[in-house]
Amino acid sequence: MTTWRDWPELALLEQDSHLRERSLARQEVFRGRLLHVVRDTVAMPDGQQATRELILHPGAVMVIPILDDGRVVVERQYRHPLGRVVVEFPAGKKDPQESSLDCARRELREETGLSAARWAYAGAMAPSVAYTDELIDIWLAQSLTAGETARDEGELLDVCLSTVDGLEQMAREGELVDSKTLTGLWWLRSWRDGSWTPEWR
Amino acid sequence: MTTWRDWPELALLEQDSHLRERSLARQEVFRGRLLHVVRDTVAMPDGQQATRELILHPGAVMVIPILDDGRVVVERQYRHPLGRVVVEFPAGKKDPQESSLDCARRELREETGLSAARWAYAGAMAPSVAYTDELIDIWLAQSLTAGETARDEGELLDVCLSTVDGLEQMAREGELVDSKTLTGLWWLRSWRDGSWTPEWR
Repeated sequence: MTTWRDWPELALLEQDSHLRERSLARQEVFRGRLLHVVRDTVAMPDGQQATRELILHPGAVMVIPILDDGRVVVERQYRHPLGRVVVEFPAGKKDPQESSLDCARRELREETGLSAARWAYAGAMAPSVAYTDELIDIWLAQSLTAGETARDEGELLDVCLSTVDGLEQMAREGELVDSKTLTGLWWLRSWRDGSWTPEWR
Repeated sequence: MTTWRDWPELALLEQDSHLRERSLARQEVFRGRLLHVVRDTVAMPDGQQATRELILHPGAVMVIPILDDGRVVVERQYRHPLGRVVVEFPAGKKDPQESSLDCARRELREETGLSAARWAYAGAMAPSVAYTDELIDIWLAQSLTAGETARDEGELLDVCLSTVDGLEQMAREGELVDSKTLTGLWWLRSWRDGSWTPEWR
């Protein structure tokens, strides 16, 4: 019988070969306007074959725009999959060959009209490790200057302001459910309590 | 020109009608073994029609199993979409008609062999608001008892232990990228600093 006295400490584990799968083949099964779905054949560690369906994604960025008074800029946007308006930090997909920071600058400007003089990289997060290769780079932006927005056709959203405490309150009440924004709150909290210090550039 | 002096406070916004879309039709475009993709036609607030592709998902749970000494139980699993081993809290999809807590009990037992005498609900999170209706319910589990695992065929994973500080360190170093696990760290931090108190049942 398994018991946690037998379980190793995560920090001591480095060996992956008993878990790793090897890609053998890829077949496109759906290419829509938004979603690109493939079915891969993989060899499991014991040599048996299995199929893995996943969504190919170019990667994305999220920006946490921070005003001088500490408030942050968020968006309210109707998200059809959830059938509700969702509160999120500004975010968007990378264009081909676009660097993460260039994408962050562009999305911030397009969606909110803001430019930022100071940027700090927090980290990457994977929204759904089971079925997409999407990674979202999280950036902090400070020293903001207002400008013109340039939203995509049909991109409807409210830009608004909130304290970080206000967002955390919403999350505790179940009103803020977006995974990238919740991850952003974890980074902001790590900064506030001194366990992480942004490196501004 | 837009400036944040004109932007409203998030807390004051309740009106959604200028953002809401109305569903008109649904077409199945791919049904695989894992992924179920549909293309919906929606009416935007101005009456124009648009299409929305999304993945239908039954919903899932994540469990944060907490030992009496404060360490937590995590899993290492190879995630083919990312091509790497990912550190995650135990999680899995709901069965049809299964309640969230029943699913949490089942997934914890199947993947780790553990049963928990105390459970507390944290909140729901949406991994990818742009393209899936998936919601993951996050549960805390305490007073753990060891037992037999019952993994799905081909479900290979390491069960291991970590301090919460150790997981946060991994996240700051870019080694922990799973969105549900990062959101779990936000809940654990909110608990630790007193801004949230779990209601145990």
